[in-house]
Parts: sequence; structure tokens; C-alpha cells
Amino acid sequence: MRIGVLGTGAMADALATHWVRAGHEVFVGGRDEGKARRLASRLGGGTGHGSLSAAAGAGDVVLAALPYGVGAQVVGDLRAQLDGKVLLDCSNPVGPGFRLLTDGGPSAARRLAESAPGVRVVKAFNLCHEDVWRMSPPVFDGQRLAVPVCGDDDTALALVRELVRDAGCEPLSGGGLDRAGLVEATAALFIGLWVGEAADVRAMAPPLAFATGPGGTPTDS
Amino acid sequence: MRIGVLGTGAMADALATHWVRAGHEVFVGGRDEGKARRLASRLGGGTGHGSLSAAAGAGDVVLAALPYGVGAQVVGDLRAQLDGKVLLDCSNPVGPGFRLLTDGGPSAARRLAESAPGVRVVKAFNLCHEDVWRMSPPVFDGQRLAVPVCGDDDTALALVRELVRDAGCEPLSGGGLDRAGLVEATAALFIGLWVGEAADVRAMAPPLAFATGPGGTPTDS
Repeated sequence: MRIGVLGTGAMADALATHWVRAGHEVFVGGRDEGKARRLASRLGGGTGHGSLSAAAGAGDVVLAALPYGVGAQVVGDLRAQLDGKVLLDCSNPVGPGFRLLTDGGPSAARRLAESAPGVRVVKAFNLCHEDVWRMSPPVFDGQRLAVPVCGDDDTALALVRELVRDAGCEPLSGGGLDRAGLVEATAALFIGLWVGEAADVRAMAPPLAFATGPGGTPTDS
Repeated sequence: MRIGVLGTGAMADALATHWVRAGHEVFVGGRDEGKARRLASRLGGGTGHGSLSAAAGAGDVVLAALPYGVGAQVVGDLRAQLDGKVLLDCSNPVGPGFRLLTDGGPSAARRLAESAPGVRVVKAFNLCHEDVWRMSPPVFDGQRLAVPVCGDDDTALALVRELVRDAGCEPLSGGGLDRAGLVEATAALFIGLWVGEAADVRAMAPPLAFATGPGGTPTDS
């Protein structure tokens, strides 16, 4: 598929690397077009580069690899180019003290959707550090990293699930875009525990076979 | 320590069983005092029983094992008996469709704190099914279940960390009570994935050693 990338940072680099390798046609756009050129060159595979606006126009799916603080403004400015497209939001609205910056208001994903009402926003790829997304594939204890995907449009969700698989991961149905805020809150909790406490967040949950206790199954409850 | 238990349901039963076994003095209170008597009898160890008000008065730490929908009202009614005490909130404000019922407003823990301003509220024990808390101990792959604990008062946090250990688990510093909403949102995500998708939520996060990618450590980021 044709993928536009808004941004030239670590998440743009990590995810686009997988997608170029999987054979997708990628176009990187940056406010700093020199950075976009250098990232495109590093990605290889005929990756295009140019302005943010050009990247928004070039993709059927557009990755918003933008800091939370500027995402809604950038997407709002590009709403004409993005109209009808799938916008993939991987941002984390997490600030100093691992605080959830959206607390009490709409999620980061919802803010993007409100900035560009004709766009089909999907949330994914926000639960791990950029270097985890660079792993090829991210597999732990023989199990592929699972990626919850939230959105309201079935076609958009199917495209993003394919992109999750192309990154070597396993997509999970995270529910509608109204659940993106839960995944963002979970990221704020995880990041606080990883970075602030050096704690293993996996240890907070039982394995699936024990999710409702010994011998239980999740459908029991 | 002296522990009052508000409620006679599965969470009251699961957690109080650990605490009686650990030698604490437990008093179970219920709106239905017959249910409180039966639970106290099952728990053994000289467990007391009586009204909700009597349980609030009997504990230095009081477990609010109440449905989200009634918690704030019950705690508000008991605020005189609870004044100065530690109130442990294990509730999950999760409704039909695994929806977070507090979305856009204060967390369940914060609502309890607002209902009884003289009470030191601590959030813990909300991330797993009641049957997981019944396990003795809850250990998976050789690792004790980790329990994030959120609160603002150091003495209260120390008491609850001890109660987490007495349940066979490992306490984690989850941060202040302002982070209780993150743990509640994470529960809504986890429950939706477990029950709705039969998905292993542990697979969404890398192990600690990989939290910032291969060879990274969490303090790198």
C-alpha cells in the first residue's frame, strides 16, 4: 500500500523500516525537508520525501509520527489532503512525571479525529519504546508482540492490522476509537513503571490461561 | 493490623482470606448482616462481623470491596467512622462493553476520596479477576503477581504494601492517587481484551530487559 509518514523522528524511522522491507511504497514528510530526505535515503527502497503536505497527499494510510503537542494542529492544517484517508496515530500524550496530558479530556487519537473530521483515525503502536518497534521481529519468549488497534472503520482497521503484521507483530482488536484513551492511559502507567520504578509491567497480569484464576477461561466471567 | 471489610462479595472473600491467614484481625461488614456473618464464619480465625458502619469503625485499614456504583455513597455515609483511616479501593468502574464508567471525570478512587476528605485512600488490587486474588500465592512462571499501589500518604502506602505481600503478591509503586485512574483504565483495557478477545494482555508489553529495546534498560529513555 501507499504510506505517507508525517514526521522524521524515531517512531517514523522504526515503523517505516518495517514497511519498506515489506514492500510498501513509503513517502516521508517533514517540516524539515532535509531530515525527510535523510530518513528516506536511509530507508531506501525508492522511499519518497518532501513536505508534510506532500506526505499527507502521498499515502492511502498516513502515519502521524508527531509529538502529541503538535499533532492536532498539523493534522488540522492537512485535513484537506487527509480527507477520506486512514490516519494512524502512534502518539503518547505523556508528560513530565509520566503524567497523562489528556487527563479529563479527549484522547490524543480523538483530538486528531476532531481536527480532521473526514479522516478515519486508528490508534496503534503506542505501548512500547521506539527501540522495541525496531526489533525485527519483536518476539519475546517465542510470542510475537501483541498490538491493540482501536478504530471505528472496518476497512481502516484491516489496513492497520496488515501494517502491524508487517512490523512482525500480532494485531489485537482494541475496540472503537473511544477506547484509544484506555491504551494511552495504559502507556502512561507502563512508562511510569518501566522508567520510574524499573518494574516489569508484564508481572501485573496473569497469563491468559489464568486470567480468571486457576483453571478458568476468560469467557467464564 | 486491624482490617475492616466493607462488602461481602468475591473480592472481600478473596482478599480477607489471605489477611486472616496472615494473622490480621479482620471484621466483615455488610448491608446484609447475615451475609457478613456467613463470610466471617467461612474466614474463621475469630473474624468479626456486623454492619458496614461497624466494619468501618473496626479497622485501621478498611477495604472498600464495593461495586463502583455504590462506593462513593457508602463511603460518604461512613465518613465519620473512616476519618483518618486508610481506605483501600479495589473497585473497577467498568460497565457494559468494558466501558470505563468514569471516562472524562474523576477516577473511582478519587471519588471515594472526595466523599470522605479525612480518609487516606489507596488504590490496589483492581487489575485481576477475583479468582486470581484467591490463588495462594498468585505466582506465574516463577514470578509473583505485581500489584501497583497508588496513594498520597506514605504511612497508608506502607500498610497497603504489607497487605499486598500478605496476599502473596509483590507491591509496585504506582504513584500518587492521581494515577489511580491510569490503573483503572488499564483494567478496562485488560478486561476487554481478556473477556472480549481471549487475548493475552502480557503479550502487549516486552519483558523489562527489553522495555527500551534489545540491550536497553528502562533508565536509558
